[in-house]
Amino acid sequence: MFSEEILKLGTKKSTIREIFEYGKKRASVVGKENIFDFSIGNPNVPAPQCVKETILEIVNNEDPTLIHGYTSAQGDDDVRESIAKSLNDRFDTKFTKDNLYMTVGAAASISICLKALTNVGDEYITFAPYFPEYKCFVEGAGGKLIVVPADIETFQINFIEFEKSITEHTKAIIVNSPNNPSGIVYSEETIKKLAKILVEKSKEYNHPIYLISDEPYREIAYDGVKVPYLTKYYNNTFVCYSYSKSLSLPGERIGYIVVPSEMEDFNLAYAAICGGGRVLGYVNAPSLFQKVVGKCATATADISIYETNRNLLYEGLTKLGYKCVKPGGAFYLFPQSLEADAKEFCKKAREKYDLLLVPGDDFGCPGHFRLSYCVQTEQIERAMPLFEKLAKDYLK
Amino acid sequence: MFSEEILKLGTKKSTIREIFEYGKKRASVVGKENIFDFSIGNPNVPAPQCVKETILEIVNNEDPTLIHGYTSAQGDDDVRESIAKSLNDRFDTKFTKDNLYMTVGAAASISICLKALTNVGDEYITFAPYFPEYKCFVEGAGGKLIVVPADIETFQINFIEFEKSITEHTKAIIVNSPNNPSGIVYSEETIKKLAKILVEKSKEYNHPIYLISDEPYREIAYDGVKVPYLTKYYNNTFVCYSYSKSLSLPGERIGYIVVPSEMEDFNLAYAAICGGGRVLGYVNAPSLFQKVVGKCATATADISIYETNRNLLYEGLTKLGYKCVKPGGAFYLFPQSLEADAKEFCKKAREKYDLLLVPGDDFGCPGHFRLSYCVQTEQIERAMPLFEKLAKDYLK
Repeated sequence: MFSEEILKLGTKKSTIREIFEYGKKRASVVGKENIFDFSIGNPNVPAPQCVKETILEIVNNEDPTLIHGYTSAQGDDDVRESIAKSLNDRFDTKFTKDNLYMTVGAAASISICLKALTNVGDEYITFAPYFPEYKCFVEGAGGKLIVVPADIETFQINFIEFEKSITEHTKAIIVNSPNNPSGIVYSEETIKKLAKILVEKSKEYNHPIYLISDEPYREIAYDGVKVPYLTKYYNNTFVCYSYSKSLSLPGERIGYIVVPSEMEDFNLAYAAICGGGRVLGYVNAPSLFQKVVGKCATATADISIYETNRNLLYEGLTKLGYKCVKPGGAFYLFPQSLEADAKEFCKKAREKYDLLLVPGDDFGCPGHFRLSYCVQTEQIERAMPLFEKLAKDYLK
Repeated sequence: MFSEEILKLGTKKSTIREIFEYGKKRASVVGKENIFDFSIGNPNVPAPQCVKETILEIVNNEDPTLIHGYTSAQGDDDVRESIAKSLNDRFDTKFTKDNLYMTVGAAASISICLKALTNVGDEYITFAPYFPEYKCFVEGAGGKLIVVPADIETFQINFIEFEKSITEHTKAIIVNSPNNPSGIVYSEETIKKLAKILVEKSKEYNHPIYLISDEPYREIAYDGVKVPYLTKYYNNTFVCYSYSKSLSLPGERIGYIVVPSEMEDFNLAYAAICGGGRVLGYVNAPSLFQKVVGKCATATADISIYETNRNLLYEGLTKLGYKCVKPGGAFYLFPQSLEADAKEFCKKAREKYDLLLVPGDDFGCPGHFRLSYCVQTEQIERAMPLFEKLAKDYLK
């Protein structure tokens, strides 16, 4: 009756969601302050003042039929120009509005790219640890997701395994840096090596292998670490962006796709993106929030709290004996679990200490767990003695 | 390289869009006031005051992390409760929040239903004249669209042809009443007959044949005509709604799907809808506008202007000799063209009189043309002498 694969996706919630729902229930029993929920990546920093001011200014002064009217499918011209300018100023790129296609957030951006690209038999490669929804999106578009095992020493790319996984069926590589769940930023060296392989393999198989760069965390990077802008390293790159994290607007669903002019058959590529958006029923990105992000293209929420949290957690946990690659961005920490089975470890943490952690298994990286630290700093401070007790259970 | 079918959809714009773009160009040559654009269904009535007031109230007074945060995938609980109540008050239904799934507009609603339902080989049936994007959505989900020819005397359903078109592969019927492009409202008699056939055929083929009711024009009906609420006539109905027209919010992309409790395997059906939304990358409907429609669930824009326009156009054109079924809703008129080839007719109207009309061919109904009358009333008044000249070219 229904599509079996889709039904499964609707019935089995993601592990993250399940833990989050458990936390809400448990809080009603033991009190919210006694639950230490590190499960979900929901920004806890408010949107910057620019967002509120822009909404008020537009709604108070502009014609409602224009504010809330259809825009062209690719997005409002002025908005796309403003975003192109902001990108060019920050990353020394040369985009115009014609390189941008506004979307309903990063998940939509990725789904549209996949719909535009996928023919029967196509494969997509991503690198563990990876955001588990990629599997849904790729399979939903009719492709197959291949996961390259993690390099757990650095969480950069395991190139030996990567090269082995590329075949004539490889349509694109999906990367996510700063990464969810590891928080790692791919170095320029990693990106150059990746680009080199893709150029060679595209030549070998006589068709472009695309790069899909999922980068909602681009602006959330610490210690002055540079997040390379991938179109400058590899022409056939689609950038999938969302303002969910940088402007703390996750519920508004607003983002874009960049299609660089240097891409092979640029006009066709852009047209395919338009076709993908059309066939999936996206029509246009929400009109008021198009205008908002156009006005606030260079603003960010106050992300300094994330850096405070990262330092506190990273230093605290490593001091306690947890092993963890230091993250350069996003708002996740991805330490090794203190027993091989991360699910058991997270279960123990939850049942004994009300610490809500997500096992790494769903991210394609067993033996690890994810901590989302977009939480109040005092939650981390109060949780630290519990992490200590948990460690002592294992390390004594 | 790209998906061929998707590329085609991105390269070949819809006829409506093409005419609309032509109009914009032509206006820059002869002046906006000399172009009589009846091509596009973009509401020209502003959103009701409730929309502005609600946005200002929320943005001025509520916590931005809550305003702009993720909601659950199916939508905010309070919002869904408010909409359920509004539907129950108006249509004597018994919905709760659990029957509602918030979406990014009607196109998204339909795409999600199709994704939830479609297995390889599935067929969908719709009735000419029909909204041409249905073909994209159905094919995008992997199904096949079967179009039942129009009953051009009434634009109700051609039941003889309909019964012939149902097969064991029929997964669902897509209806749209009030209809784009004919403006016709399906009578209760039509709905009852349709439901009876679907019950019989579901039994014959031993699987449910669903009804997908695309109803963005539900509130735009004239002369007190009743638009039957389909879940009351047929249990296996998905209602796909959008606030684009009723609240004049087409650019904001906000709507919902109703899954009635009476549907066969309700829990599975609702789960499949959740899976469809997830796999297409929708995440959640835009959060601020969820709250807005929750607050304005029973409000509408001032749609009286549409009725004024309909009367003026319908009476004016029929007096001039145009043949047209009188529409009971939406904001379209769908008269017969004055020569058999509607494309030629519309070309002549455009080239000789700058009247922008859409040929019926794309709606699966040749020999007709669509007029969208969500325009300034004075545009209709000034266009009437041109329609008269056009008629005289043919009827003298």
